[in-house]
Amino acid sequence: MRVTYSEEAIRLHRLYKGKISITPKVSLETMEDLALAYSPGVAAVSMAIANDVNESYQLTNRANTVAVISDGSAVLGLGNIGPEAAMPVMEGKAALFKRFAGIDAIPICLNTQDKDAIIDVITYLAPSFGGINLEDIAAPKCFEIEERLQHIGIPVFHDDQHGTAIVVLAGLINGLNLIGKTPNAVKVVISGVGAAGIATAKLLNTYGVSDIVMVDSKGIVGRGRQDLNKVKEDILKITNPQSLEGDLEDALEEADVFIGVSAPNIVTEKAIQKMATNPIVFVLSNPDPEILPELAIKAGAAIIATGRSDYPNQINNCLVFPGIFRGALDVRCPKITVDMKIAVASALAELVVEPSVDFIVPNSFDPSVVSAVSKAITTIFNK
Amino acid sequence: MRVTYSEEAIRLHRLYKGKISITPKVSLETMEDLALAYSPGVAAVSMAIANDVNESYQLTNRANTVAVISDGSAVLGLGNIGPEAAMPVMEGKAALFKRFAGIDAIPICLNTQDKDAIIDVITYLAPSFGGINLEDIAAPKCFEIEERLQHIGIPVFHDDQHGTAIVVLAGLINGLNLIGKTPNAVKVVISGVGAAGIATAKLLNTYGVSDIVMVDSKGIVGRGRQDLNKVKEDILKITNPQSLEGDLEDALEEADVFIGVSAPNIVTEKAIQKMATNPIVFVLSNPDPEILPELAIKAGAAIIATGRSDYPNQINNCLVFPGIFRGALDVRCPKITVDMKIAVASALAELVVEPSVDFIVPNSFDPSVVSAVSKAITTIFNK
Repeated sequence: MRVTYSEEAIRLHRLYKGKISITPKVSLETMEDLALAYSPGVAAVSMAIANDVNESYQLTNRANTVAVISDGSAVLGLGNIGPEAAMPVMEGKAALFKRFAGIDAIPICLNTQDKDAIIDVITYLAPSFGGINLEDIAAPKCFEIEERLQHIGIPVFHDDQHGTAIVVLAGLINGLNLIGKTPNAVKVVISGVGAAGIATAKLLNTYGVSDIVMVDSKGIVGRGRQDLNKVKEDILKITNPQSLEGDLEDALEEADVFIGVSAPNIVTEKAIQKMATNPIVFVLSNPDPEILPELAIKAGAAIIATGRSDYPNQINNCLVFPGIFRGALDVRCPKITVDMKIAVASALAELVVEPSVDFIVPNSFDPSVVSAVSKAITTIFNK
Repeated sequence: MRVTYSEEAIRLHRLYKGKISITPKVSLETMEDLALAYSPGVAAVSMAIANDVNESYQLTNRANTVAVISDGSAVLGLGNIGPEAAMPVMEGKAALFKRFAGIDAIPICLNTQDKDAIIDVITYLAPSFGGINLEDIAAPKCFEIEERLQHIGIPVFHDDQHGTAIVVLAGLINGLNLIGKTPNAVKVVISGVGAAGIATAKLLNTYGVSDIVMVDSKGIVGRGRQDLNKVKEDILKITNPQSLEGDLEDALEEADVFIGVSAPNIVTEKAIQKMATNPIVFVLSNPDPEILPELAIKAGAAIIATGRSDYPNQINNCLVFPGIFRGALDVRCPKITVDMKIAVASALAELVVEPSVDFIVPNSFDPSVVSAVSKAITTIFNK
């Protein structure tokens, strides 16, 4: 990260005091205006919803509103910095929701990190929103929280998991095509068994990648390990088919794809050299990747993606969450299914008309992205 | 209410799909913009808050943000119509917050009506906001909810209680002056022992009105009653000094002031005629008052106020809540004290330069109201 980004960002935030504000959509200049927007006219509007709760999607802003909710337990790469400190990220996300998809997003940071309390709060908040974007909630509790909220009637989507997984899959679809390999014949190594790593493994598996090896800070996630939590035990059921053991470098031997969602500078040039021919290397640790792209290229990587905007192939969740919720809100879809996630990844891959090693995913500002992603959602939903 | 208000209000809400939207305050047109407002620049902003939580008031929108929170249990005069149906009211209130005080208010309706759950949720939500406006929560639980939330570090203010009480006191200050009576020498009858009635009794008592008689649907709230809940038992400690018994008409005998925050058409002309000379009659049931102003005048009322905009002397909470929160946010005051409430009532009364029987409170659109109210808050806070 450029040092000046920090200073400039703080200066910008201090100047504007945050990044979002509320704007009334109706005129409030006369007593007549007040009588229609508020008392007494609003009583009829409330009664219309009391008589048919579906009217809340027609008579309030609910149909265009998403809550961006965090407990501040896993903020960016900064860790457990608490709800107040998480707010700049949630406000930023809210601003992006509006910029990219016209969605009114409300940033909410919770003063509890208890799993059950978070689930209760979000259940109680549901009538106020058309969807819930979970954000920066630590693994492994993030999985259970999202899972147990799938039945509240509005879509609940943990972007750190699926946003990343979907863009990775999109990039991989184009990347594998470019080097002439197929999903069911490649070995994929994922470093990082948190929100993004687990979701990526599951999505790639569903897409047809059968040989996935996961690696955490202690080494390969394998059946011989005694220290695995339930989430890692569960992911073993669909990963590590060769029962590998060892460290990251051992895992990378003859691997076709490396996906790093873990920590800076943990991959050596030597490890890349041990990979199969034309290896694909996604180093998404941000701002400092698992290995610098220039070093990975020197070591033989054919295609490289990062989380950064100053290298080619930025794996950016901005490609996904605005369109996902745009589509979900437009058709009032109650959950985001795995079929939808794969459809979105395919749509993103197809948006790149002429893929090349430096162009496997669309640009974040490509204006066709949101409509392509939302169309993928609504098409699956309407099937 | 004019019949057409209902139709026009529904048409307006359907057309705009609600009344508020989110607007980004920062530019998001380039990768550089994104790098400053979101990743990676936002990390430095989050760390600044992690290092000093007070910075959340400088680097996010918190210092200008209020949550308007309801459980939908007592919406307007419509009763317990649920969270979705309450939302049009909360959105309207949010729009008014912006219109009158420039405050960004977030409407939140909760899918629980359990007292403890509501307290928990609001405690968890606190880091996201600079203040909490409770709205349309049923009595008696509203009292305990507000009370138990006074210690969460940001002001929690139940507008149905104190907004009404403060404007009533403002009107009464000017009204009593006009007819030459003093607070400590008048008998005040309050019909309605819900949120507004209880808060009004407490505020008038603190202001110096010692003879207050409360009346509910069963009659005068007196020591002989066996059916009183805890809130009514408690209010008896500061009301009904003469130990009256009987119905509303009995209570009104020789009363100087009637304040109705109860139900339509429950006061007869005959009852008004039994009041002391030059009675002051506040009939705030909305849209249909406890007695129509024209009938009250015929029966001898000297000064009349209603909740409606089509009669003189509208007792409108809009005079209070925008300025209360503007002041509280500006000085980061952690609670709204009774001294502040009285200071606000006095400031509102003083804003009426030449009070008359048809002009005892300022007009809702008087542009000097918000600054006068917020100044009352900040002056007391800074004392």
